[in-house]
Parts: sequence; C-alpha cells; structure tokens
Amino acid sequence: MLINSKSYRTIWSHPDDSTVTQIIDQRMLPHEFIIVDLVAVDDFCLAIRDMYVRGAGLIGATAGFGMYAATLQCRDDNFTADINNFAKALCDTRPTAKNLVWAVERQLTAMAHCQTVQQKREIAFKTATAIADEDALFCKRIGEHGASIIKEISKKKNGEPVNILTHCNAGWLAFVDYGSATAPIYQASNDGIKVHVWVDETRPWLQGARLTAFELKEEKIPHTLIADNTGGHLMQHGLVDLVIVGTDRTTFTGDVANKIGTYLKALAAHDNNIPFYVALPSSTFDWQIEDGVQDIPIEKRSGDEINKITGLAENGEMTTVLIPPENTESANYSFDVTPARLITGLITERGIVKPNREAILQLYPEKKQVDLRG
Amino acid sequence: MLINSKSYRTIWSHPDDSTVTQIIDQRMLPHEFIIVDLVAVDDFCLAIRDMYVRGAGLIGATAGFGMYAATLQCRDDNFTADINNFAKALCDTRPTAKNLVWAVERQLTAMAHCQTVQQKREIAFKTATAIADEDALFCKRIGEHGASIIKEISKKKNGEPVNILTHCNAGWLAFVDYGSATAPIYQASNDGIKVHVWVDETRPWLQGARLTAFELKEEKIPHTLIADNTGGHLMQHGLVDLVIVGTDRTTFTGDVANKIGTYLKALAAHDNNIPFYVALPSSTFDWQIEDGVQDIPIEKRSGDEINKITGLAENGEMTTVLIPPENTESANYSFDVTPARLITGLITERGIVKPNREAILQLYPEKKQVDLRG
Repeated sequence: MLINSKSYRTIWSHPDDSTVTQIIDQRMLPHEFIIVDLVAVDDFCLAIRDMYVRGAGLIGATAGFGMYAATLQCRDDNFTADINNFAKALCDTRPTAKNLVWAVERQLTAMAHCQTVQQKREIAFKTATAIADEDALFCKRIGEHGASIIKEISKKKNGEPVNILTHCNAGWLAFVDYGSATAPIYQASNDGIKVHVWVDETRPWLQGARLTAFELKEEKIPHTLIADNTGGHLMQHGLVDLVIVGTDRTTFTGDVANKIGTYLKALAAHDNNIPFYVALPSSTFDWQIEDGVQDIPIEKRSGDEINKITGLAENGEMTTVLIPPENTESANYSFDVTPARLITGLITERGIVKPNREAILQLYPEKKQVDLRG
Repeated sequence: MLINSKSYRTIWSHPDDSTVTQIIDQRMLPHEFIIVDLVAVDDFCLAIRDMYVRGAGLIGATAGFGMYAATLQCRDDNFTADINNFAKALCDTRPTAKNLVWAVERQLTAMAHCQTVQQKREIAFKTATAIADEDALFCKRIGEHGASIIKEISKKKNGEPVNILTHCNAGWLAFVDYGSATAPIYQASNDGIKVHVWVDETRPWLQGARLTAFELKEEKIPHTLIADNTGGHLMQHGLVDLVIVGTDRTTFTGDVANKIGTYLKALAAHDNNIPFYVALPSSTFDWQIEDGVQDIPIEKRSGDEINKITGLAENGEMTTVLIPPENTESANYSFDVTPARLITGLITERGIVKPNREAILQLYPEKKQVDLRG
C-alpha cells in the first residue's frame, strides 16, 4: 500500500542481501519514517517484543524471516538443538499472537523434510517468503469477501457513505499488505463505494491514532479519529453502520482475542443491533482452544505504556510525557476476548463464516480432526 | 480533602477579599499545583469552558460564585438585564452540565426576592456559599449511603479488598469536597474496609489518570490505573466487584449522562452481573427530560483534546505532543448517556434509589409536579 504515494510492504528481504530483512519501525509512525535492518535472531525478537512491528500477520511474517535468520545462526553440527532454541525465543516474545507460533511451526515443519543444513536454510528462506506472500494474498481475498458486506449496506443507504468503526490497527501495517479489517474498506473504496471510517485511537499504544489514521490518510479514505470511549455513543445515535476489527487469535469455536477494548465495542454493537465482523486469515485460528475467554493467554505489558505517551512536540522532537502522578501503578492488559455470541461473522480468505465450531470446521474441513466433541 | 497532607476544598472565597474566588487550576494537576483568582464573570466563564474547573458539583459551585461576581459587575440601573446576560453567558459554557443551570437558576430565584441591588449582591454571596457548603454536605451523605454497598460486598468477600472501578473523576476535585463516586470509597476506607480502585484513565482529557489517581494517592487509597479499554476484560475475569461513577445530568427517569465511555462500562457490568451504581447530589437531576439518550444535549469539544496530549516531559516542563498525523480530523464527544436499564441504583444524598421515575419521585416528592404521565 501507499506511503507518500509510493508502494510498500511492511517487511521485505533487502534487495542486495537476502540475509538482511527490512521493516518499517512502526513506533515512530506517523511522524518519522524509519527503515530498520534485522539480521540476528535477537534483532527479530526485539522488533517483535518492543513493537517495531506488530499486528497478527506482520508478527507472523517477521517470525518467518526470523526463523530464516535463525538457520544462518545455527551451528551446522548442532542445528536441531539451536533451531529449537531460536524457535522458542521467537515464540516467547508475544504470548497472545497466534500467527507467531503458527509461522515458527510452519518453518520447523518445512525444515523437517530437508536432509542437509544447506537445504534447511534454503527452504527456510522460501517459506519465509511464502508466508509473507500468502499473508498478502489472503488479506486481498478477505478484502474481496468483506467488501460485499459494505456494498450491501451502501445499497440500503442509497449510496450514502457507509460508516465503519474499527479498533486498533488491523490495517496493512499489521500484515504484509492490505490488512485484515481494512482490506474490505480498501476494496470497497476501490470499487467506488463511499465509506467513512471511525478510527478508535486505541490506548495505550495508540495504534489507531498513529497507524490506522496514517494508513487511511495515505490511501485517501475519509476517516475521523475518536477516543476509544466514543463508539457506544456513536452507535446509539445511528452513526455507525458496521464494525470490522482484526484479531490476534480466534478459537475454532469463534471466540476472538483482539486488542483490549474490542469486547466493549462488541457489546455496544450488540446493544444497538449493528453488525460486528472480525477479519482474519486462517493463520490466526487457534485449532486447540475451545473457550477463548478462559483459555487464551492475555499478554500483560509494562505500565509505562499507559503512564507515558510519546508524540511530536512543537520543537519537532519525538518527546515522551508523563500523565499520572509519578510512580502510579498501572495494569496494561494488551488484549481481551470477545465471546462468539457477540460476533456477526468472521471474514476469512475462504469467505464469510458464522463464529461457531460447525461453520468454521465446514470452511476448513482439513482441521476437522481437532473437533473436540468427537 | 488532602493535597500534600493539607486540607483543601476545590473552590473558596479569598480569605481577605470576598470579591475574589479562588480555585485550583486542574489542567495542571498532578504535576503543578496552581491556585487561580477569579474576579470578572469572564474569568468564571473561561475557567468553566477551558476546564480549569470541571465536574458536576464544582461547575455548579463555580457558577454560583460566578453569579455573585456578576452582581458586582451589573450596573445598578440596569441590573435585571445585565444579570440575565451574565447568567446566559455562564449557562452557555458547558451544555451537558445540569448543575451549571441549576446553580444559576438558584441564584436568580434568590435574587428575585430582594428589593435592592445591594440586597441582591448580599444574597448572591450567601447563596454561592450555601451552594458550595451544601455540595460538600450532600457528597458526605452520598458517601455514608454508598459505603453500605461496599461494606456488604466486603462481608461477602470475608474482608478481602473490594475492587471498585470508576470512570473519569467524580472525586472531590469534581465537587467542592468528598466527591460523588469517590465519597463512598473514602467513607468505607475511613471505616476500615479494604478497597482497591481501578482508575479508568478517561480519554481524551485524562481526568482519571491526572485527577482520580492523584486524589487517591493523596488519600492513600490503593488504586491501579488502566486504559479505558480494560474494564470489560477485568470484569470477565472477576476482578471488579462494583462500578461507581458520577454523572453530569441524570433524568428523573434514571438515564445517566456521564463522561464519554460510561455507557460501555455499564454494558460490560451488565454482561458480567456486576453492580453498576451512579452517585449524584439532587442538583444533578434533570426534572424535565424523559428520554436521556435522545434528549440530553451532548457537548462536542475541540478535536485538539484528542490529537494533542499534555504531560510532564523529562526536562520537567509541561509539554504538549501531537499523536496522529497532522490535521487529522477528530470527533470529541464529551459525554454519553447510559440508559436506566443498565444501572443498578443511584446513590443520592437522601439514600439509594432504583433508576426509575416512580422510585426517584418517591425520594423527591416535592418534584412530583413534573411527572409527565399525569
């Protein structure tokens, strides 16, 4: 997608040296555009943990390239032990993100079929590239399926703008390209449908204010930034036609872990009869966990992310300011889980599906062996 | 209540000159403690509009003293026209706040009984003082009634800390003393009950992070700051026993206008069977409006309050930082309305009451003439 009218992905191999992976440092957006080189596995772990990169698909893609970097660091005579250690280090960076484990496991499975270390390195690079390409392709398909929902509402509104609320950034910056929640918006807009996006600023990390507002601006999609507290009021007054969010992990029973606060918006959408959709590529499904509210691990991050806010000061410097009294204790839960009963549908690369076990397993029949009722 | 172990109210007459009213500039808290003198009506209007003072009771008390200041500015030979103009200027500063209009009308009614301009000035000062004293007294009573709810929960938990979530600042800084939502917490704590408060930071103005966290720290009440998005997750996991919030206007039918985002917390409390109480002195009741969601006017403030955040930089200076891309359009609705059906009870100075017309009018029988069904 576009930054300053130039096309980018969020992660790519250095054109002159495939052992170097390049990313955009999302901590500095929208005020500074910095490209960072990742080489060692530690670089990849830091980039994921400290949120240079974030978002379901992009965390997965970064882990994919991280595993390729790991193959280059593994000792030839100790490859299996080394790669498993690196895999664990990558998986430990963000506990809620399903795509992370999924990408690491896909790499390990791919390598398992190789005879030599050299072959493992080659397959790891191919797999990393495939994970990234597939992420982009799946998001594009999510866009095509999801756009049909927007078009239907647009028809009912006689072409008046469709007001879509989104939380956090499940945009192209959270994936490799297109995004999950934003893909239907970009697709509908490309198809000539008038849309307007309510952007939740998404405290504490402000992904909405910093990233979603930036993306939509660069793509020239009309949008309005709001405090996270605002969505309920807008819904009560008919100002939201549709909610679309992303997810960091969705159970095969339809429970959705997503950025903290998503559950509150789902409650408000339910209370006001507004459709609430979750967009995800299949790499985000958890095929083991049945009860998302009880069993999806929820990451707790530093309270500093709540107490201190970084932005552009008038002197042009990125500056951090303290909000509450010094040493105030803060609890920073990164995600919450929205129960399936509050969700209208899941928009996947294979189509739109009801958030329940039967429907999801029908769409992904190859996963039926995990059906725990059997 | 205490700041640095010294007792304060939020508003008082200058001890040496009753024509000067003094307030704490709450925009600078918790990092700077600045007392501001208000003399002209314009000073009072600015202080209310730009939120040097804020909160239901304190806006009312400030308007009360503002009306006294107005009497000093009115021309003797044009008093009635002048005072009505000043009254309108004060009422126009914050459209949702019921206490504002209530205090101004109380002053006009008091003056209407006076013969001379001098008498009007004298009664206006007495009335301003009475409004402030009554606000403090009523909050104290709210505390006594509300503490019973906390004690009941404490008993059920065998003395384990009662976890109370609050949104915005309905603390003593929002009133003249004690607060509405916080008064039961202070009272219960004084009575030896263990409490712990989850403090919603309350974007965009961050009343929770800046003021509630400050109050609770100064009063040594255990508390944890959270992003507004967090309450639903805490409630799903049994970490909230009780919600208490304040209100800027409550209809006699039990609908509650309060800081934007309150409705979302009420939905989450309802979804998790957690008691949700609203604390208010009777000055906050609107005895005319029946349907709060449709008919309570909701203030819209500048988008700058969303786009820019002020806090303490590392150099010790209060500094403002920009979060989203420059010129991002933001919508800043200050309040939302929680329908009565989501509210467990209202804690008033006369006792705890169900949020419905019959119960409220039974508690305030002198208001029965407004019962619109009759």
